[in-house]
Amino acid sequence: MAGRRTSEPPEHVAGRVQRFRERMRLKKIEATLLTNRMDSFYLTGCTAEDSALLVTPRQLRMISDGRFQDSIDEECPWIDKAIRRGSLVAEIAKVCKRLRLSSLAVQGDVVSVDLHRELRKACKPIKLTIASPIVNQLRRIKDGFEIRAIESASRVAEAAFRSTCRSIRVGQTEQAIAARLEYEMKKRGASEPAFPSIVAEGPNAALPHAFPGERCVAAGSMLLLDWGACVGFYRSDLTRVVGIRRMPPRIAKIYRIVLEAQEKAIAAIRPGRRACDVDAVARAHIRKAGFGKEFSHGLGHGLGLDVHEAPRLGRQSEDVLEAGMVVTVEPGIYVKGVGGVRIEDDVLVTADGARVLTHLNKDLASAIV
Amino acid sequence: MAGRRTSEPPEHVAGRVQRFRERMRLKKIEATLLTNRMDSFYLTGCTAEDSALLVTPRQLRMISDGRFQDSIDEECPWIDKAIRRGSLVAEIAKVCKRLRLSSLAVQGDVVSVDLHRELRKACKPIKLTIASPIVNQLRRIKDGFEIRAIESASRVAEAAFRSTCRSIRVGQTEQAIAARLEYEMKKRGASEPAFPSIVAEGPNAALPHAFPGERCVAAGSMLLLDWGACVGFYRSDLTRVVGIRRMPPRIAKIYRIVLEAQEKAIAAIRPGRRACDVDAVARAHIRKAGFGKEFSHGLGHGLGLDVHEAPRLGRQSEDVLEAGMVVTVEPGIYVKGVGGVRIEDDVLVTADGARVLTHLNKDLASAIV
Repeated sequence: MAGRRTSEPPEHVAGRVQRFRERMRLKKIEATLLTNRMDSFYLTGCTAEDSALLVTPRQLRMISDGRFQDSIDEECPWIDKAIRRGSLVAEIAKVCKRLRLSSLAVQGDVVSVDLHRELRKACKPIKLTIASPIVNQLRRIKDGFEIRAIESASRVAEAAFRSTCRSIRVGQTEQAIAARLEYEMKKRGASEPAFPSIVAEGPNAALPHAFPGERCVAAGSMLLLDWGACVGFYRSDLTRVVGIRRMPPRIAKIYRIVLEAQEKAIAAIRPGRRACDVDAVARAHIRKAGFGKEFSHGLGHGLGLDVHEAPRLGRQSEDVLEAGMVVTVEPGIYVKGVGGVRIEDDVLVTADGARVLTHLNKDLASAIV
Repeated sequence: MAGRRTSEPPEHVAGRVQRFRERMRLKKIEATLLTNRMDSFYLTGCTAEDSALLVTPRQLRMISDGRFQDSIDEECPWIDKAIRRGSLVAEIAKVCKRLRLSSLAVQGDVVSVDLHRELRKACKPIKLTIASPIVNQLRRIKDGFEIRAIESASRVAEAAFRSTCRSIRVGQTEQAIAARLEYEMKKRGASEPAFPSIVAEGPNAALPHAFPGERCVAAGSMLLLDWGACVGFYRSDLTRVVGIRRMPPRIAKIYRIVLEAQEKAIAAIRPGRRACDVDAVARAHIRKAGFGKEFSHGLGHGLGLDVHEAPRLGRQSEDVLEAGMVVTVEPGIYVKGVGGVRIEDDVLVTADGARVLTHLNKDLASAIV
């Protein structure tokens, strides 16, 4: 079943499609098949699952199934659609053959070996090529619509944090606090947490990727929270550490070091700067303070429709910062058996520096619940 | 960095590893690389992300990074580990070469074309082969530990539903009800919802995959809830429809038809039966009632560590039911602009029939909040 488009796309979406097609033309790509849901969403606003988006210089065609027919009409009446009755692969092949394509570029970082083999067989004699990650490259630079979306996701995460902090009581489990934090986000319009929230008490905070569990909050202990909201498909990502009634002295000491490292790194952000150099600024500060080995991960990552996307801020990153990128800045120090501190904000690279999109207080004195 | 194993695996995990190695032997596979997190969890209990599990007849080696070193020691001290400093691909190649492998089987349905290419290059002269989905095949048949885990996930989902239903008030949004439902699951030990919950009021329920939104609950309207809990990595998946104060008469009519279809389908489940035949039982009942076109999806799917896994219960399914499978049975009727009814339970295929693992009431008379 095929449907013809009506109406026009919103301006920001039209711009993305235009930039994508320019890249396709430069790379002499005749047609691209996008099978990553967020990439399709980026170019169309369409949220259908188990679908594929075919892009040619003149067509944008969503290949989907009956479950999503109505939502495609509602979300993006301006694209063509093909509603499959058989398999997705068979429908893709049918559409491509009808368009008399001679080649089709697929996403090598997304398509599985099995799917690639199936597609190659079904699409014959159309030649399958591997597209470089064009959408990923475009998605690195956020437009105004996206920056506002990430700010909305930040506001929801921050309000939920403040509300949750007021509710924390000695004796509560990490799990109960995580439940409350996610509920407060969802009540404020988050479709889901941006990722599984981390709520880690004391020694658990020494594990950078702890699960919230049955461990209870004790007076004089510390809590690390790493959470974010997904609002309108865009994500925020924050980390804060709080003391329960008071901050343990050893944690207070590393808190100051981590905060200084984070502030220095943020101050070092500007377009043209290598991401590894920004990482190095934070890392040098922590190393000089004697905790070099205890900062066991990269400084941060791009953020948007995915919680981890390009660029990467790490020692081995080859990315160079550009205006419009949104990245997390999250140095940390982890002391096994004792606890850990990570402080994380979301930062927009601007024309001449950086603008921090997240605004929760970081003063040590106020990091007490 | 490499670590040697200590202690022994739990019995149910040892059994899975043994069955996996038997299949490898039958298929003459020298070594398998698992890059799907839930597959690795299935064979080890290890929850590390961004990692890979290498299985040979004598070794189980988790290739991971510093973030997960401690959790691997805690979750599965009985396996070997390799903690990488460079990239995952480089570490995999190093481990495989040290073992002097001549071939390595990877998961064709999991590994991307790009990753496959990188691995092939890094592992040379080791030959990469594509493994048939051995773990998927094993995961179809649940052991006692897994059945209990799915039952736990069902209990959490059910208790959360009952509690949420008591709190529903006219004027609440779908989004607020979904937030409450997920909070109630999380408070009871769910690590996360099994999938994004659907809470759809009136006409929204006619979309089989509606997002919970700003639509408000009205007296005399209906609400469709499709939700599940993830507990200890196992998932439940249920759907119920409730009337607000009373059930709309048109919905009550289709409710009866859907419930009869579901009951007939469950009664048709037994080992040896083709999944498409069970689908046909429900579909025939709905078609005879005049709603054949309004049942626009398959009858159900396997359930376990993933919310959708083998087998598939649909018209085109080639699966045959076996004892130990756990599947959803979820017929539905959707009437555009009016509403929809889907009723879903999780069902274990037993030696001589079926046992329903979910126990929420389905009487039309009690489906009122």
